Amino acid sequence: MSGEQELGITESKEHSTGEWYAEVVQKAELADYAPMGGFIVTRPRGYAVWERIQDHLDGWFKDTGVDNAYFPMFIPESYLEREKDIVEGFDPEVAWVTHGGHDELEERLAVRPTSESIITPFIADWVRSHRDLPMRLNQWCSVVRWEATETKPFFRTKEFLWQEGHTAHADEDGAWDETMTRLDQYERLYEDVMAMPALKGRKPEHDKFPGAHTTTTIETLMPDGKSVQAATSHYLGTSFAEAFDITYADEDEEDQTAHTTSWGLSWRSMGALIMLHSDDQGLVLPPTLAPTQVVIVPIWQEDNKEEVVEYAADAAAELEEAGVRVNLDDRDNRNPGFKYNEWELKGVPLRIEVGPNEVEDDELTLVHRPDGENSVESRDDIAATVEDHLDTVYAKLYASAEETLEGEIREADSREEILGTIGQHGGYVKTGWCGDEDCEDPIKDALAAEIVMVPLDRDEEPLHDDCAICGDEAEETAYWAKTY
Amino acid sequence: MSGEQELGITESKEHSTGEWYAEVVQKAELADYAPMGGFIVTRPRGYAVWERIQDHLDGWFKDTGVDNAYFPMFIPESYLEREKDIVEGFDPEVAWVTHGGHDELEERLAVRPTSESIITPFIADWVRSHRDLPMRLNQWCSVVRWEATETKPFFRTKEFLWQEGHTAHADEDGAWDETMTRLDQYERLYEDVMAMPALKGRKPEHDKFPGAHTTTTIETLMPDGKSVQAATSHYLGTSFAEAFDITYADEDEEDQTAHTTSWGLSWRSMGALIMLHSDDQGLVLPPTLAPTQVVIVPIWQEDNKEEVVEYAADAAAELEEAGVRVNLDDRDNRNPGFKYNEWELKGVPLRIEVGPNEVEDDELTLVHRPDGENSVESRDDIAATVEDHLDTVYAKLYASAEETLEGEIREADSREEILGTIGQHGGYVKTGWCGDEDCEDPIKDALAAEIVMVPLDRDEEPLHDDCAICGDEAEETAYWAKTY
Repeated sequence: MSGEQELGITESKEHSTGEWYAEVVQKAELADYAPMGGFIVTRPRGYAVWERIQDHLDGWFKDTGVDNAYFPMFIPESYLEREKDIVEGFDPEVAWVTHGGHDELEERLAVRPTSESIITPFIADWVRSHRDLPMRLNQWCSVVRWEATETKPFFRTKEFLWQEGHTAHADEDGAWDETMTRLDQYERLYEDVMAMPALKGRKPEHDKFPGAHTTTTIETLMPDGKSVQAATSHYLGTSFAEAFDITYADEDEEDQTAHTTSWGLSWRSMGALIMLHSDDQGLVLPPTLAPTQVVIVPIWQEDNKEEVVEYAADAAAELEEAGVRVNLDDRDNRNPGFKYNEWELKGVPLRIEVGPNEVEDDELTLVHRPDGENSVESRDDIAATVEDHLDTVYAKLYASAEETLEGEIREADSREEILGTIGQHGGYVKTGWCGDEDCEDPIKDALAAEIVMVPLDRDEEPLHDDCAICGDEAEETAYWAKTY
Repeated sequence: MSGEQELGITESKEHSTGEWYAEVVQKAELADYAPMGGFIVTRPRGYAVWERIQDHLDGWFKDTGVDNAYFPMFIPESYLEREKDIVEGFDPEVAWVTHGGHDELEERLAVRPTSESIITPFIADWVRSHRDLPMRLNQWCSVVRWEATETKPFFRTKEFLWQEGHTAHADEDGAWDETMTRLDQYERLYEDVMAMPALKGRKPEHDKFPGAHTTTTIETLMPDGKSVQAATSHYLGTSFAEAFDITYADEDEEDQTAHTTSWGLSWRSMGALIMLHSDDQGLVLPPTLAPTQVVIVPIWQEDNKEEVVEYAADAAAELEEAGVRVNLDDRDNRNPGFKYNEWELKGVPLRIEVGPNEVEDDELTLVHRPDGENSVESRDDIAATVEDHLDTVYAKLYASAEETLEGEIREADSREEILGTIGQHGGYVKTGWCGDEDCEDPIKDALAAEIVMVPLDRDEEPLHDDCAICGDEAEETAYWAKTY
């Protein structure tokens, strides 16, 4: 059937990862390329995954004292310039609005690349007393960063969807706790919702968010051995509070400067999700995020069509009643094999096959995605059985990803060993590191690998006494990897 | 107490509506003015109302076959130019991105004023066969229209939040049904969630959405006698489908052109909500949308503080358990009178007062916002009692708005009578109308009133035989009003 060939994935995940990824994203109808380079259109099947990610995170944020708000998408150039690191960090990649209607604007407006520069002055205005602290704001929005790179849907786009949290606290302890609370929530999202084991760490000083005191990061490993910066949470110290004057009266009516944080997770998380779990048959999604968790495919002959379809519909109704996101595929114009392929391509985690045998024996055949494991189950209590199977599918996805990660953290103690290990295996390589940015250069130049993180704990003893590059005394343990 | 004066509303709704509105919005902490004219910052108390509006509408959309998606916030100038009415309609108020980083762009990008021009070509790409129809997409996003008018939070801002639905159908019937389904859902939102009686109608031909065949509208009346266009739903005919080539193969494999619709509701709905219900004490919100539905204020002396607060906390816990959004205000540093004023200002629909008498008699005192009606109720079954009172508060808000509207639809049959009636009373005036845009001018010039709608049914007999302005034969019944 010609439709079938057109439908299927033709590229190989192992041999042409980039092309395969682009094919999965488009053929599973997650996204399309916009007419402007660097922009994508997120289609319903993609957006539904993002909505579920939002729902989880947003609930956790609200449970822990965060309020949603909405700030303008434009930032006046003069505001952007008030915090010098932000300007230096983002100026080269800002999209500028220069005209409104037929008139040139008096001051250029930046399309927000991140919103510290417009949110912090308002927090400064709203915070008067220690009673107003902590103040925790979040917004779900899109931001624009004009990077001149190839479009990679969700991973790298000039406009992307994200949430950005911005908080102010009375002191460093409060702000640091906040930074870690959000990092832990991001970790929880990866571990418990996305079936992705995650590493937590700190970015090296030279790779921090502009203006931050400390940037903490969640890193996840892709099957091609590259690391993805999967979310970041920044302790900003007092740099933004000073630039925008967030002061408050403490209990003794003394003026104090607040400490601030910001933290964000973007749709890059979806890119990593798709990249990690999917396969040469197409999209693989954990049941937690799949818009359709179960597809029921009835398999009939003309003489038993009515009873097979009715049996299947009855099971679908029972699952739906129990809150399972189920789709009954009783299309006349497609055969079962076509349907299997299509739903595998689109990432449905569990398929239920119903033929005359199942009807006769009062059973259902359940097939797992992606490993194809199948089992015949009793029709009784099918909702509970299906929930168990969905849990199993999740656990298998996680276990597979965890196994990959565990084998991919290696050690090295020389430049040659770093290059050799990453070159041969990918993954993470841990070394001693003196802390000097210059020591990153030879690895970057030779292999496009970099230091993706150092341990969260600044006092942790380095793994090796010496820096693997320059041989000076090591200050930290560096995790090297190629990156997305 | 100086704080109390600062907190309260100083302007009068009746005598200085505009200033009063601006004061309510800011002092109830719904929004603040951004540094750029025409932009606002939506604060948590305002955004929470918008989130509840979203939740209701989004649920109804999904229940009726709509999928959410996300399209780029920028539209290439050449795309905007493909539908000529859209260009003419929006070109004067487009914000243009001309630079990315340090480079001038080859083609200017419009910050979306509405998204037909970027969404329709993708629908054209995705629709091949009649089986792909209807296709229904919606996005929640912000849009920008560079209008040079005074900023009025939520009512009139250069950037505003909204949802925009875009659908394609096989024929006119399908598209027209869709147009009406969405109009009915908007009406339901106003009637059942916002406590606002609404009129449904059609915009006159000269005031349609650019490119539309028919623009239908929800109009609501403000207390100052002006009408608000509260949502619109457009049957676009085939104009966009032709401009962007949405064709499909029908059941006979013949190529057909699709019919499309678009429909949107913006945060202007929040502006109308605030304007209609609020009063000189501050914000009034229906319980359906209030972030806090009930505030419990314990009133204690030093010798009974512990038992009063405990009793209040126990009631709060029971309400919260039952799903009521309740806040226990046991602050030490504010007296009860201050708290009453503050929560009235912030729009909490129901206050519960707890003093030693209530504790002794196992009762609670419930006070309605805005009318101050109070009653003493048994502590038993308090959650059910509170739900009843919240329903009553909603019903009273609605009844009050309905009474106002009913008295404000008058008739006229001459230019002088229109001017006199609207000038004296505001509200709507119904007249016969020939259908010629020129007949609107004398009223517009004299009074800034216009034809806000005509009946939905094109075949409805006009109210009067003659046009109230020119005396020619009337084609329609026109509803005249001043507008926001």
